Amino acid sequence: MSATVARTAFSDCPCCMPRRGFLAAAVMAGATSFAATAAEAQAPSGQAPAASPQPAAGGGGAGGGVIVDCHGHYTTEPKELLDWRKRQIDALKDPSQTPSRASLKISDDQLRESVEGAQLKLQRERGTNVTIFSPRAGGMAHHIGDATTSREWSILCNDTIHRLTQLYPKNFIGVCQLPQSPGVSPGNCRDELERCVKELGFVGCNLNPDPSGGFWTDPPLTDRFWYPIYEKMVELDVPAMIHVSASANRNFHATGAHYINGDTTAFMQFITGDLFKDFPNIRFIIPHGGGAVPYHWGRYRGLAQDLRRPPLPELLRNVFFDTCVYHQAGIDLLTKVVPVENILFASEMVGAVRGIDPETGRHYDDTKRFIDAAPNLGEADRRKIYEGNARRVYPRLAGKLGN
Amino acid sequence: MSATVARTAFSDCPCCMPRRGFLAAAVMAGATSFAATAAEAQAPSGQAPAASPQPAAGGGGAGGGVIVDCHGHYTTEPKELLDWRKRQIDALKDPSQTPSRASLKISDDQLRESVEGAQLKLQRERGTNVTIFSPRAGGMAHHIGDATTSREWSILCNDTIHRLTQLYPKNFIGVCQLPQSPGVSPGNCRDELERCVKELGFVGCNLNPDPSGGFWTDPPLTDRFWYPIYEKMVELDVPAMIHVSASANRNFHATGAHYINGDTTAFMQFITGDLFKDFPNIRFIIPHGGGAVPYHWGRYRGLAQDLRRPPLPELLRNVFFDTCVYHQAGIDLLTKVVPVENILFASEMVGAVRGIDPETGRHYDDTKRFIDAAPNLGEADRRKIYEGNARRVYPRLAGKLGN
Repeated sequence: MSATVARTAFSDCPCCMPRRGFLAAAVMAGATSFAATAAEAQAPSGQAPAASPQPAAGGGGAGGGVIVDCHGHYTTEPKELLDWRKRQIDALKDPSQTPSRASLKISDDQLRESVEGAQLKLQRERGTNVTIFSPRAGGMAHHIGDATTSREWSILCNDTIHRLTQLYPKNFIGVCQLPQSPGVSPGNCRDELERCVKELGFVGCNLNPDPSGGFWTDPPLTDRFWYPIYEKMVELDVPAMIHVSASANRNFHATGAHYINGDTTAFMQFITGDLFKDFPNIRFIIPHGGGAVPYHWGRYRGLAQDLRRPPLPELLRNVFFDTCVYHQAGIDLLTKVVPVENILFASEMVGAVRGIDPETGRHYDDTKRFIDAAPNLGEADRRKIYEGNARRVYPRLAGKLGN
Repeated sequence: MSATVARTAFSDCPCCMPRRGFLAAAVMAGATSFAATAAEAQAPSGQAPAASPQPAAGGGGAGGGVIVDCHGHYTTEPKELLDWRKRQIDALKDPSQTPSRASLKISDDQLRESVEGAQLKLQRERGTNVTIFSPRAGGMAHHIGDATTSREWSILCNDTIHRLTQLYPKNFIGVCQLPQSPGVSPGNCRDELERCVKELGFVGCNLNPDPSGGFWTDPPLTDRFWYPIYEKMVELDVPAMIHVSASANRNFHATGAHYINGDTTAFMQFITGDLFKDFPNIRFIIPHGGGAVPYHWGRYRGLAQDLRRPPLPELLRNVFFDTCVYHQAGIDLLTKVVPVENILFASEMVGAVRGIDPETGRHYDDTKRFIDAAPNLGEADRRKIYEGNARRVYPRLAGKLGN
């Protein structure tokens, strides 16, 4: 069974399903599962030669370096993982039916099949080398159930990512989902973060600034509420990508509004808070090109100035943007206004936007060609964006890529 | 008393106050008032010659045409207006203390004083002619009190704008605040919209997609919930600018997150809904350069495609963007990716960002110079952005500017 076929078996993902279904799911606010978009028919489905376990990540990128894609989610999961989640959610009404983690059975061949026609094929086609890989963002759905629900689901998802990093150590490096739950101190995520970093070899985590799923009921990221997980991040020297999950608020389409709003909101919280006085070495990646921020760079420079906050360059010691911007003009703006040291290559391939742009004949999310064509960048700049900055932001990459 | 002095007398506006105060005010969630930012000290305070009542709007713009700024709020209100609002809010606990509208006393000289050193001075300095002018956006605060609270406050604010348009008919054309209230059908806004258009000569309205003030509890803009006000807009042939108000959610800084998120959210709602099938001639302006949308134009093109929604050009029959983007690179992107027919000049001067950019020595919100310098635009394009498009979107401008 190809990954494409497997994925089309599901039809309720609030992150990527057609709007009509999305709204219906959001109204349910609590029952989520996963789906394929219409665009998946356009996802690569060609058969690729089976990759065999490899000894070390990266190697052989264009220009002699490695090309690290810092933002990939496992959106092509085998049906069994999604079925397990559905059983877990169904059991919220009858806890006696809660499935054990051990009840999930996925073979190595299934894992291989799920990525070989998708992420691995696209790495080859696009000339990237290694993806910093984490569970499906929309699937985290921290608003469902309670902290125990999130813990069980997170462990299962992270373990699955770990298996992929073992099968394809050259292609995937793990980043974990945290077992967040609305209203619960993020201190409850410390153990899972430590396990993922120390035992599974992960290099970072995804941090959801709104575990409520579009209702924004927890405090801003600069509040001390979040400090316990920040302390653990600093101790382990791993960064977090700020990434919301599914939206249970019918106003917010997940990938079209909630994701981008989450990015913008986080940056403005960082402007107005004093977080980096308390954590001078912590590092955050704001995905999706920083939400609205680079486009409104003058607004944010001006707001920081009006509010008598530090100028943006000070913030940029701790805050980085990825390149998930799906057109040339957007990448050109990003690379013009944001210092090149603060930009990390990413595509979120097989993610939010899967179609082929009829204007270019290429996938919207093939961001590498935008970086390669960006007029503001020289070769040294591109090397920073493709590899150097990622090594600085994720120091544990050194153990994966070599020095 | 200069406008600057008057404004610095207040210190709690959730839209423009320093973050610390903003958070405190947001926690109060319900008690709002108005304030000056630190940057207001940088706002023009020079004395301008008193303008006398003038017979008709516009006239004498650069290049022979008129330059219409479609996005201005009355952020320099006399203290008396803000005091009245404070009394109204205080009276929510003791309705017997509710002030009557008639109790507000503001002289024509006070109104003149409030704009002559600010908006009018900036029009002259920047070479713009006429501002489509509405009450302070953050001041609408529809989440405070109930529909009656909003009605009384809206009538008072709109009447004040009307007086300014009478004092300076060449410089200001009115757009109204609507008496929205969370959970209340926007049908309750029809009478005030009709009054403002038919009796006060206003040309449009501001529509708040989130009257709850950052909690997004009402349905999306494409829901039939909103149809009663759309029917009245179409009947009167006036557009709405989609504009949120103050944020009572501590996660969202008003002008730095809530405003931009509101813009982005509205556009995605338009992509996913069928509103324009039911209202083929309705027109919306999405301010602040369209939020995150132009920067992520490829993402939105791709999402519409993946979701099997109409391509964006179809949406652009009904949706327009303003130019409140406060740096050259942002304006360059906007004018590159969005058709010139869909861009309306705006500055929101004396608004969200009031400082002077040390890199240019000019105000961040002096957007005209970015338009003038945009390499993608020819003179005919600029005339559309400065005037032609505004006339199409606001047909009632013809009665103000002449044909």
